[in-house]
Amino acid sequence: MPVARPDAIRRHNLALLLGQVHRDGELTRAELTQRLDLNRSTIGSLVADLTELGLLEEWVPSGGDRAGRPSHVVGPRQDGPYAIAVDIDVTHLTIAAVGIGGHVLSRHTLPMDPTPSPAELVAKHIVAAAANVGVEVDERAWPIGIGISVPGTVDWHSGTVEFAPNLTWRHEEFGAMVAALAPPGLRVVVGNDADLAVIAEHVRGGGRGSDDVVYLIGRIGVGAGIIVNGTPLRGHDGYAGEVGHNVVDASGPQCHCGKRGCVETYVGENALLELAGRTEPVTAGSIAAVFADAAAGDERASSAVRAVAAALGRTIASLVNVLNPERVLLGGSFTEVFRLAEKEMMEALDSHTMGDSRNTVQLCTPRLGDDSSLLGAAELAFGALLADPLVTR
Amino acid sequence: MPVARPDAIRRHNLALLLGQVHRDGELTRAELTQRLDLNRSTIGSLVADLTELGLLEEWVPSGGDRAGRPSHVVGPRQDGPYAIAVDIDVTHLTIAAVGIGGHVLSRHTLPMDPTPSPAELVAKHIVAAAANVGVEVDERAWPIGIGISVPGTVDWHSGTVEFAPNLTWRHEEFGAMVAALAPPGLRVVVGNDADLAVIAEHVRGGGRGSDDVVYLIGRIGVGAGIIVNGTPLRGHDGYAGEVGHNVVDASGPQCHCGKRGCVETYVGENALLELAGRTEPVTAGSIAAVFADAAAGDERASSAVRAVAAALGRTIASLVNVLNPERVLLGGSFTEVFRLAEKEMMEALDSHTMGDSRNTVQLCTPRLGDDSSLLGAAELAFGALLADPLVTR
Repeated sequence: MPVARPDAIRRHNLALLLGQVHRDGELTRAELTQRLDLNRSTIGSLVADLTELGLLEEWVPSGGDRAGRPSHVVGPRQDGPYAIAVDIDVTHLTIAAVGIGGHVLSRHTLPMDPTPSPAELVAKHIVAAAANVGVEVDERAWPIGIGISVPGTVDWHSGTVEFAPNLTWRHEEFGAMVAALAPPGLRVVVGNDADLAVIAEHVRGGGRGSDDVVYLIGRIGVGAGIIVNGTPLRGHDGYAGEVGHNVVDASGPQCHCGKRGCVETYVGENALLELAGRTEPVTAGSIAAVFADAAAGDERASSAVRAVAAALGRTIASLVNVLNPERVLLGGSFTEVFRLAEKEMMEALDSHTMGDSRNTVQLCTPRLGDDSSLLGAAELAFGALLADPLVTR
Repeated sequence: MPVARPDAIRRHNLALLLGQVHRDGELTRAELTQRLDLNRSTIGSLVADLTELGLLEEWVPSGGDRAGRPSHVVGPRQDGPYAIAVDIDVTHLTIAAVGIGGHVLSRHTLPMDPTPSPAELVAKHIVAAAANVGVEVDERAWPIGIGISVPGTVDWHSGTVEFAPNLTWRHEEFGAMVAALAPPGLRVVVGNDADLAVIAEHVRGGGRGSDDVVYLIGRIGVGAGIIVNGTPLRGHDGYAGEVGHNVVDASGPQCHCGKRGCVETYVGENALLELAGRTEPVTAGSIAAVFADAAAGDERASSAVRAVAAALGRTIASLVNVLNPERVLLGGSFTEVFRLAEKEMMEALDSHTMGDSRNTVQLCTPRLGDDSSLLGAAELAFGALLADPLVTR
């Protein structure tokens, strides 16, 4: 800790205050004074700076039950900066303008046509859709960056998608592609879907308040986003969490990756459809139909869901043994598997977890629903601003 | 960052300086000035404080090739504080006095008799041996704590050994047992063997300079110690890294834990002996004999080592997929498996790693040899002193 200089302290305190409002929404000056352990006049001056930067606004709440002058309330501006957040799935993509505080200001869903779509085409669609999304927000609001969630491994230094098997993308310099088409100066950041989902859930969803969280996402492929010691586990290159092709039975079903018995062949959406005896391809509709039929008592659909639940319980046990998380969030199709067959999942988890990690781990569904990856992409785009609010424009 | 007060800054800087010397050994005042980004007089005053506390000493190097006054050298004191470090294995335990800088000042190895020994008996042996070890160091040196490495899961809050299957310990309040027998005021800390090994290797061994390291230890059981983002991954309770009972083949060999096809049944020391056709129990000698025979060309021993190497390559691939580490260190019996059958291990790793994590991961042997867990136990005992040198006595 070289001696901190005043301007560094001020930047740090601005970031701290903005971060509190971003994470928790509206807060009174009194709450901010207590949380930041600073005096009231310093808080007032920081709020004034952030208001002038166009990031926050404050107002005096009307009424109130308690005597005395009510504390000013500080909150995100509706006409402030917004992130353009993109969640790419195999069959469709979602794009949204997301303001400070994680508020979705505007959103669109586009089909991926053809399926899968080449990276260059998706980059073009994103930049066109970003312009549309921008039209729908307050005209004084301004975009601070584009954050993109991809179902595949991403080199987090460069934004290159190294491998997204279900998009058939391999080493696509996707971040650079989007940046080349986007308005100059708009920063583009790319992350893996599960990695981004766990970030969003950790900030203001089901992982909040826990330092050790795993988000397991079930789509055609399977991935994990991991928080340890309160910080995202990216790994050396950003490829951490690729559990989908861990082998759980060397003599199991053939996987498209060339191996046998990968996790994905037991719990991925193709496995679910096949177990349920369906011949149509994976779509939001075909997967929803299996869950609806299982809920209605269809025996084949039910038994497929139970089989996936048991295999998922074993997969979670392997992750619990290695990571000893406090919470495991079940996203994508796993949310419904958990709801419909929690008993089978828990039995498999119990019998396959080593020692005492089992006693403390909680399984739950994501609180941000299907938006975890999208909101995580927004967090990625907000990263630079939250680290230093003075770089805002 | 509430405004830092002068005494907090001084404590922080004392800890920073002591940490540099602990990690890197002797350093000149000029090097410390540069590393800490502080002026020379501040460094001089911090060194004076740490000398007075009995932690460091400094001297003027004799001779030297360059002109000008040579910079003073600062190093650990030989008569300063030492950690009592203990590494418990199933058949024996090692106890050592370890000084600042990780120097082993004195060491003993004791057989575990009976095998396995009950926790109460081991606690008594440790406290008796600690007194002997203390007699052998400089009489002015003083013990700062006892750090203990255990082959099992440890609740890192309480020092309770939750489960050490090969010691047949279950929920033993081992830290409290040792503390009750030890001289009053001597802090006792307990950790898992692989967790401690990776800490020591990260500080001054094969994991140095990397933020993402896995240490995989092969004994009768199998465990992993993990560093991510430069920090130990303990998990919510301290149970992270328990890979030994992850199932890799649901129709594989029966494991003593009740499941089939656990990692341990393929790569643990019992598996190695069985594959090599040996009927004697696991001892340092019986394991060494298999490696010696394999190195000498014995076909059955060689093929056993190759089979363990291939299974270990698959195990490492699963960890690489989840953690994307930069380095994987192979400790315990895995060191020799790697030396004798690197090719088989690498082939299995290649074919089972998803995507590009494979390109950057390096497999290597621990630089601290068999002492990684022992030296990690010393790091644990030094923790409080390194965090705040003013609490030294």
